[in-house]
Amino acid sequence: MKQLRALGMRYTDQGLEILDQTLLPQKQVWIRVDSAEQLFRIICNLQVRGAPAIGISAALLLADLARNGVLGDPLRENAELLRSARPTAVNLNYCVTRVLQSNLNDAAEIFATALKLFEDDVRLCEDIARHGVALISEDDSILTICNTGGLATAGAGTAFGIVRAAHEKGLRPQLFAMETRPLLQGGRLTAWEAGQLGIPHHLLVDSAAGALLQSGKIDRVLVGADRIAANGDTANKVGTYSLAVLANRHGVPFHVVAPSTTLDLECPDGSQIEIEQRSADEVRGTSCGFGTLQWAPEKSPVFNPAFDVTPHQLITSWILDSGNCETADQFPGN
Amino acid sequence: MKQLRALGMRYTDQGLEILDQTLLPQKQVWIRVDSAEQLFRIICNLQVRGAPAIGISAALLLADLARNGVLGDPLRENAELLRSARPTAVNLNYCVTRVLQSNLNDAAEIFATALKLFEDDVRLCEDIARHGVALISEDDSILTICNTGGLATAGAGTAFGIVRAAHEKGLRPQLFAMETRPLLQGGRLTAWEAGQLGIPHHLLVDSAAGALLQSGKIDRVLVGADRIAANGDTANKVGTYSLAVLANRHGVPFHVVAPSTTLDLECPDGSQIEIEQRSADEVRGTSCGFGTLQWAPEKSPVFNPAFDVTPHQLITSWILDSGNCETADQFPGN
Repeated sequence: MKQLRALGMRYTDQGLEILDQTLLPQKQVWIRVDSAEQLFRIICNLQVRGAPAIGISAALLLADLARNGVLGDPLRENAELLRSARPTAVNLNYCVTRVLQSNLNDAAEIFATALKLFEDDVRLCEDIARHGVALISEDDSILTICNTGGLATAGAGTAFGIVRAAHEKGLRPQLFAMETRPLLQGGRLTAWEAGQLGIPHHLLVDSAAGALLQSGKIDRVLVGADRIAANGDTANKVGTYSLAVLANRHGVPFHVVAPSTTLDLECPDGSQIEIEQRSADEVRGTSCGFGTLQWAPEKSPVFNPAFDVTPHQLITSWILDSGNCETADQFPGN
Repeated sequence: MKQLRALGMRYTDQGLEILDQTLLPQKQVWIRVDSAEQLFRIICNLQVRGAPAIGISAALLLADLARNGVLGDPLRENAELLRSARPTAVNLNYCVTRVLQSNLNDAAEIFATALKLFEDDVRLCEDIARHGVALISEDDSILTICNTGGLATAGAGTAFGIVRAAHEKGLRPQLFAMETRPLLQGGRLTAWEAGQLGIPHHLLVDSAAGALLQSGKIDRVLVGADRIAANGDTANKVGTYSLAVLANRHGVPFHVVAPSTTLDLECPDGSQIEIEQRSADEVRGTSCGFGTLQWAPEKSPVFNPAFDVTPHQLITSWILDSGNCETADQFPGN
């Protein structure tokens, strides 16, 4: 059997394994996943996260279930459970739909579908990086939010993948990574990936993005996406909207970077995108591989949307695998 | 001897004691302070914080030193050490200057100066609240950053003091408190003060302020200040500038709330305000009364300004003890 390996997941004779992203960078723990209920919890807990990565992990798990004799209607039920794990990211929905379009009684066909989704995602990342790096100048300082690297995809990443490609091409990009409260994907994961690859970087609290843009140090903002509507409105990690407003004020180009699997052309605009509200505990403290702390009063009520929507007017371009789209009209299929 | 008691400091026969704000809300620990070196460290560590509170604590410590026979040039040296503890907040400089204008060989006069600074600050808070509450309508939702309550002043607070006065007047304000990374003054201190006073409130991560303003739920933004330049440009907790840009975009009134001791009319505009850069450890993790955690890679470089500067054009008004100033021309003394 073909073995599939990404930074945050692998599929081998042992079945599907997920690198627990809540424990990074302190601990590298791989979890063997063998049921949809388990993967559902793993996705909800963000042990695997990143819009492309959660979609591919669902497809691989369904392929593994099929290989183990779960076929037909039971497989469909498992697929529908996984589809419901996170409402905002469209890639999960896309990957589950692709699996369900296979012959659900044919394990080999289902595996071939999952394999294609995985390999396509690697290629999508490469295509994105090629289009993106063409926009980067030597010594550019690039500001980003959340984690959009190898952990978030099957390949080299989306927004982070462009910075990585620029670094490998010798353009000496400087990465500024927002820590991305509440779950610190920037502070934990992007800083870790940048460090591993030797990409010069600085961490900042999310609130310092304004001062940084005001200082004139930033040449370009690159962010990922969880769902892009037909008119270009984009749902991404909470804080992306603030960043877009600030970039706009300072005349700094603001790019959304995603595979075309993140497009949701059925969705006319951002007002139709469901935004997941997450638990109050995430804001009252933090809980990860390094331990658990609560600092806020125990019963403080919390407003905790996982995502926000950036209106298309604030987006300079969408860097997709199909090319750099300066308007939503240029989206493939639009 | 007159006993002075505020939420975060007290001066009694025991001398000066500071409520350690880094341990709140989990632990309430009072620290007896008996040297300028000790208070210098306490201010640098933010065990006492809030622009008015650090100024008053310095004045009280100098009065206590004088009572214990430190007079003349030695007292002046202690005063200069304290003045240098934090560069951005102007109130510290103001209070130290006021003490140094006393007869430095007259302990009673120095105590009288410190007492007046303390009592004036209480009154300034009352005056601010009176002017501010006149702007608040029933059921207003008010967004704020950092802590500007009883812990930050000798009195009821500045921005928070207005919300408190509105609550006590029966206007049912809803407070939305940004947690304020890196040191979580909102998540720890404002949430705690609001809870103690029964003020309805929600906590949010700093990055969620954009989504909240976008939702149309917020009627008004109230923030404190560490230094206000003659043209109205205002240095305050990092993140204030982003908030002002977002409020402006959504047409939500944005008010700076401070005692007139925060005005620095010698400073023509925000470009002249020195911004303190703080330690990388604050961003790589967090360390407070609830414990210490580091989540970022150990050597990640960090960009960590403690404050940012909001240009006057983004400020709807400055609510001072002297009144609600819609332009900087209305500042007392300008």
